[in-house]
Amino acid sequence: MFKKRLFTPGPTPVPERIMLKMANPIIHHRNPEFKEIFAELNENIKYLFQTKNDVLTLTSSGTGAMEAAVANVINENEKAIYVNGGKFGERWGHLLRVFGGIPLEIRKDWGIPPAKEEILDLIKENPEVVAVYLTHSETSSGTVTDVKEIAHEIRRISDALIIVDGITSIGAIELRMDDWDIDIVLTGSQKGLMIPPGLAFIAVSERAWKKINKTENRTYYLSLKKAKKALETGDTPWTPAITLIIGANEALKMIKKEGIENIWQRHSKLAEGIRTGIKALGLKLLSKSPSNAVTAVLMPDGIEFKKFNDALKYEFGITVAGGQENYKGKLFRISHLGYYDELDMISMISALEFALHKSGYKFEPACGVNAIQKFFLENL
Amino acid sequence: MFKKRLFTPGPTPVPERIMLKMANPIIHHRNPEFKEIFAELNENIKYLFQTKNDVLTLTSSGTGAMEAAVANVINENEKAIYVNGGKFGERWGHLLRVFGGIPLEIRKDWGIPPAKEEILDLIKENPEVVAVYLTHSETSSGTVTDVKEIAHEIRRISDALIIVDGITSIGAIELRMDDWDIDIVLTGSQKGLMIPPGLAFIAVSERAWKKINKTENRTYYLSLKKAKKALETGDTPWTPAITLIIGANEALKMIKKEGIENIWQRHSKLAEGIRTGIKALGLKLLSKSPSNAVTAVLMPDGIEFKKFNDALKYEFGITVAGGQENYKGKLFRISHLGYYDELDMISMISALEFALHKSGYKFEPACGVNAIQKFFLENL
Repeated sequence: MFKKRLFTPGPTPVPERIMLKMANPIIHHRNPEFKEIFAELNENIKYLFQTKNDVLTLTSSGTGAMEAAVANVINENEKAIYVNGGKFGERWGHLLRVFGGIPLEIRKDWGIPPAKEEILDLIKENPEVVAVYLTHSETSSGTVTDVKEIAHEIRRISDALIIVDGITSIGAIELRMDDWDIDIVLTGSQKGLMIPPGLAFIAVSERAWKKINKTENRTYYLSLKKAKKALETGDTPWTPAITLIIGANEALKMIKKEGIENIWQRHSKLAEGIRTGIKALGLKLLSKSPSNAVTAVLMPDGIEFKKFNDALKYEFGITVAGGQENYKGKLFRISHLGYYDELDMISMISALEFALHKSGYKFEPACGVNAIQKFFLENL
Repeated sequence: MFKKRLFTPGPTPVPERIMLKMANPIIHHRNPEFKEIFAELNENIKYLFQTKNDVLTLTSSGTGAMEAAVANVINENEKAIYVNGGKFGERWGHLLRVFGGIPLEIRKDWGIPPAKEEILDLIKENPEVVAVYLTHSETSSGTVTDVKEIAHEIRRISDALIIVDGITSIGAIELRMDDWDIDIVLTGSQKGLMIPPGLAFIAVSERAWKKINKTENRTYYLSLKKAKKALETGDTPWTPAITLIIGANEALKMIKKEGIENIWQRHSKLAEGIRTGIKALGLKLLSKSPSNAVTAVLMPDGIEFKKFNDALKYEFGITVAGGQENYKGKLFRISHLGYYDELDMISMISALEFALHKSGYKFEPACGVNAIQKFFLENL
């Protein structure tokens, strides 16, 4: 017997009932049975995004939705601001360049979110910018950006579209598309939505549609206009990932039942629990503004990542994410995004103690578990 | 009790053992366990395509792979030939226009494949064409194109890339990428590969890589260069549809075990059986060159499609595909693509007789079933 547990920020664990639901005999995507499921999904996904806007379903990873948010929006030589504070923020810049936009970069050290003044100043210097691309929860560094306040401030001085990568924030961290007046929000299926990867969702405001309708078509498969037109008859323009849509519909029912505010609160509590355990063990976070979706923990001095991670994975069955790019081997990331509860977090800190011990790190035995347990007891 | 049976050319029925395999707890795509599965898939998919070239995995529908075969290959203002003899051939033209190529169209009536002379003449008139886009099995009309001969003739007079939509032919109809010297072949997962939709596969020859490497990047998510680079370390550039990859790997094991020639032969026999039953019932095929993947049958005079199809679907549990575009309501399409055997085909003809009878069509009772049964008995 060797139990495995996944603590990665995508894929995240999929509830067993969803996996089994998806294992039913496949149905055709033009059948009434599927259309009913897709109609239900299209209603409930709006709740997840806290929007009245249509949310379009793409058969792609989250990066496909990011491409859609650039290729459908930016004409050649149009300026757009993006924040590069990690691997995923940086991706906005790659996409802007591929599609011929002029990217204006705000570069931040990993773990530091952008200050609103930096964005506002850049808009003032370049009033012609057509969009500001933000990363709500930067997965590579476990950093949350205050999208609410930044969006509020941008809107006071500019009509630029506000476009948010919500890939690890949707279904985990408070995001209210309509109340915050955001123009495009997107996510992937294997994150807060708790289903396997292969689908992406992108919500588009009226203001964004106006821009998209004036923008030259530079994608076909990821065309938002085609997706919107198909949605008018309850369809997708291409054969969608049918089983994943069935799974997403189930997941959205679970989300609706729990309630989105409760979900945000649960993530906040689980993340706070993990951070409490981490700190008790004397470990340090990378981020100055930690995300409630994923916690990036710096490797303690003298402890080799590979040894630690191998123990975690092969002796204790736990998969966490490693560091990316410059932080490869220098940090590990614990996900508390999606289908998790308090006991999962305690298991995680427990296994972390086992693996740290095996890799030669010195700490007061059980101090991490003790701290997280007390935190949860105080916050029942 | 109401049994449902799917006879659509995508999604096609998924073997039960594959559905259950995919329902196992999700694993991370950077875990050794997944990498082993993906490595195995990457070997076996070459067998399916009959190629030594790398076959790249995209998380998209087949249309995503078609976009990849245009956006990575065609520079602005380069000429390419495509055959528009149905909805999917026509799509090559849409894609060529979106990506700024100059499409040279060979227009055919639905059901008529291109003659090699038409293609050769157009190449001679336009020796600068960089690619010829073909549709091996045109799903909208159930028509097969003789790709082998056309490729052979093109290669004698031109270095243009030969690019084949194998979406409903791969795993059903003989296609030998290397022997036939084809440059790009692509398919989707929900066809001959017998798994749910959400993945596409695209095989690329050395000659095609040379062109791709000289072509401006006009896609990011569907970049073949990025997919190739990731494949060098056994990865995908973006989070792939993990469960579908696990399913595809299982399917490829089944395919390898049956043997690709046996699979082509099985499809040939099942298709011939269906055509025998159809003809015995006095019905007519749309295609002059019928595909062994899907059979398009013209609605008999005076029989209303909706009434017929509703009987088939709601009384007898059978889903077939209807006609598309100008043929909407004028034909129906029976798939024999993927996970089917003789008894499935007899069930199909049997239910067809029930539904035709219900919709007022006159025929000798059991003549269709009689004919297909005799055909299979003679070809045991």
